[in-house]
Amino acid sequence: MTSTPKRVYNFNPGPAALPLEVLQQAQEEMLDYRGTGMSVMEISHRSKEFEGIIQTAEADLRELLGIPANYKVMFLQGGASLQFAMLPMNLRAAGASADYVVTGTWSKTAFKEASKLGTTRAAASTEANGFKDLPAKLDLDPKAAYLHFTSNETIHGVEFFKEPVAPDGVPLVCDASSDFISHPIDVSKYALIYAGAQKNAGPAGVVIVIARDDILEKVPANLPTLLDYKALAASGSLHNTPPCYSIYIAGLVFKWVKQLGGLGAMEKRNHAKADLVYKTIDSSGGFYRGHAMPAARSMMNIPFRLPAEELEATFASESKKADLIGLKGHRSVGGMRASLYNALGVDASEALTRFMQEFQKKHG
Amino acid sequence: MTSTPKRVYNFNPGPAALPLEVLQQAQEEMLDYRGTGMSVMEISHRSKEFEGIIQTAEADLRELLGIPANYKVMFLQGGASLQFAMLPMNLRAAGASADYVVTGTWSKTAFKEASKLGTTRAAASTEANGFKDLPAKLDLDPKAAYLHFTSNETIHGVEFFKEPVAPDGVPLVCDASSDFISHPIDVSKYALIYAGAQKNAGPAGVVIVIARDDILEKVPANLPTLLDYKALAASGSLHNTPPCYSIYIAGLVFKWVKQLGGLGAMEKRNHAKADLVYKTIDSSGGFYRGHAMPAARSMMNIPFRLPAEELEATFASESKKADLIGLKGHRSVGGMRASLYNALGVDASEALTRFMQEFQKKHG
Repeated sequence: MTSTPKRVYNFNPGPAALPLEVLQQAQEEMLDYRGTGMSVMEISHRSKEFEGIIQTAEADLRELLGIPANYKVMFLQGGASLQFAMLPMNLRAAGASADYVVTGTWSKTAFKEASKLGTTRAAASTEANGFKDLPAKLDLDPKAAYLHFTSNETIHGVEFFKEPVAPDGVPLVCDASSDFISHPIDVSKYALIYAGAQKNAGPAGVVIVIARDDILEKVPANLPTLLDYKALAASGSLHNTPPCYSIYIAGLVFKWVKQLGGLGAMEKRNHAKADLVYKTIDSSGGFYRGHAMPAARSMMNIPFRLPAEELEATFASESKKADLIGLKGHRSVGGMRASLYNALGVDASEALTRFMQEFQKKHG
Repeated sequence: MTSTPKRVYNFNPGPAALPLEVLQQAQEEMLDYRGTGMSVMEISHRSKEFEGIIQTAEADLRELLGIPANYKVMFLQGGASLQFAMLPMNLRAAGASADYVVTGTWSKTAFKEASKLGTTRAAASTEANGFKDLPAKLDLDPKAAYLHFTSNETIHGVEFFKEPVAPDGVPLVCDASSDFISHPIDVSKYALIYAGAQKNAGPAGVVIVIARDDILEKVPANLPTLLDYKALAASGSLHNTPPCYSIYIAGLVFKWVKQLGGLGAMEKRNHAKADLVYKTIDSSGGFYRGHAMPAARSMMNIPFRLPAEELEATFASESKKADLIGLKGHRSVGGMRASLYNALGVDASEALTRFMQEFQKKHG
């Protein structure tokens, strides 16, 4: 390792930037994890070393989020997309209905997958206005098996900063994939939270599920074990071989977040980063137009358009040349998207806003 | 990286040893994958770099196994254990029955998981004799939805070197997790092969599924997408974010196997390694006793007992002190187990047999 490795500003929507310190530690420990003479990828998931890794990851996550003792934490596979199916299989009894708040591509997909398996209601949908805003009100089923929402829509860039309030006795379930551990939340308001790690919390290959004990008690008998929250929680995520390396990296990320001051500090930093970009958009005289309405604007993903598609193509190629990576937007929204997950520093936002201003001067 | 990292002889049953060259390359590329300025963990699964990784991994695997063009290759999550459920969901129509050859813990577990979801028959079981042998004959259902077998039983150390012959028109399905790419096979005999990577093919977190096209055409409509072989194959394993880093490492392992000469060369090497240990057992005058009957002996996992449990405990602790790691057997068989997957060289087997002989001299 003689030459300094090249590093870029990474605005990828996920998989996404990881803290440099985390990658450096992983690199150092690659051939010999703390004197074992083995890589983390080579040690048994039943070894005391791996037990240390997964238990420390869980303890740090519990501390970061303030997860109460009556919740289980699971490190599972299949991404949030497999959770779209596991949720209704586990939490919606035969014949019951579940409510979904539809605010973008991801909650719509969750709704569709749940619909394959039983009765599913939209408690609200903002699709008619292009998923630009949060719903003004919800039409809630007081007997719903659960109420599902997506706290941040990665593609449309709308984020809930306050949870929807479920009717008494209706469990609140959240897909938190793209704003997980980006700011503090009150876990006690939720029955279940799930989050693919590959945005704020680690690499792809692990999805974190936080579930309240009473929910687990209602899981139907005889589900396939790998789709059964109760069995998976009871095994401590070790029913079968877990995605060990992804869990290890997520654990290093949790330590890094703690060292930076926890979720309060992270929220401040994320606000500062997003504010810089939103200010640049708002002060551009309409050259840059954000997709989301101001009140619903995500701190994590900022989709924005330029005056013409050719300009957007130029922005994409020129920003890439300037080592600002991953700014091309999702095809369903078009234009650009800046994803500003935890691992990015304020310097990344500064570099982006500088580039945006210069680009406007040149092409505006 | 100034100090030479410690490395041990790693006989873990899985996750297991990886080739040192693979780990070194992963270490080198950790902060900057080939000039991208990003780790493989940080690049988009939709990027051309990741397309290169997954397509090269697939092409190399196709070459190694000689996978015919009418088979799809998928890189999925959830391990072989999730396949235990996906198989019957995808390949067993409502009301149909599936046949299972039960030869150890893993095929028994596959049978149990399939039984949760529908009619499941044991075409044979060797449980009554302690899973020490392969079945002498099979009681086959000519109308079975498929015939399932486990080519190598990781815990009991019995391995099929010739596939069971399914009745005409009955698809043959194999859990090849623990002898995958350890020797050549004729893929055209199989309708579907699945294998968790964490033995011979890579780290935990990815399971490889090889499925013949006609099987995929029969997948029932409206399965949850993440459990639907047809949808997953059609997306090229990219319906959602795949376990990118595990696929990357598996791809490096495939390249390494090719460089060593492919599966023929690997088979020779694996034979040589296993022969050394079996010879040591057979020439020990009964001090070491192999669990499996000679004709069914696995090339991959060698469970063996010593004359007394105290001696086994001593063997476990002394071998560990000698940097021979992972030799404690599974509790269901007891004693010791040596797992000799692809990544281990003949030197590992030599070190183990030397240790076994010295241990016998000292304690025998």
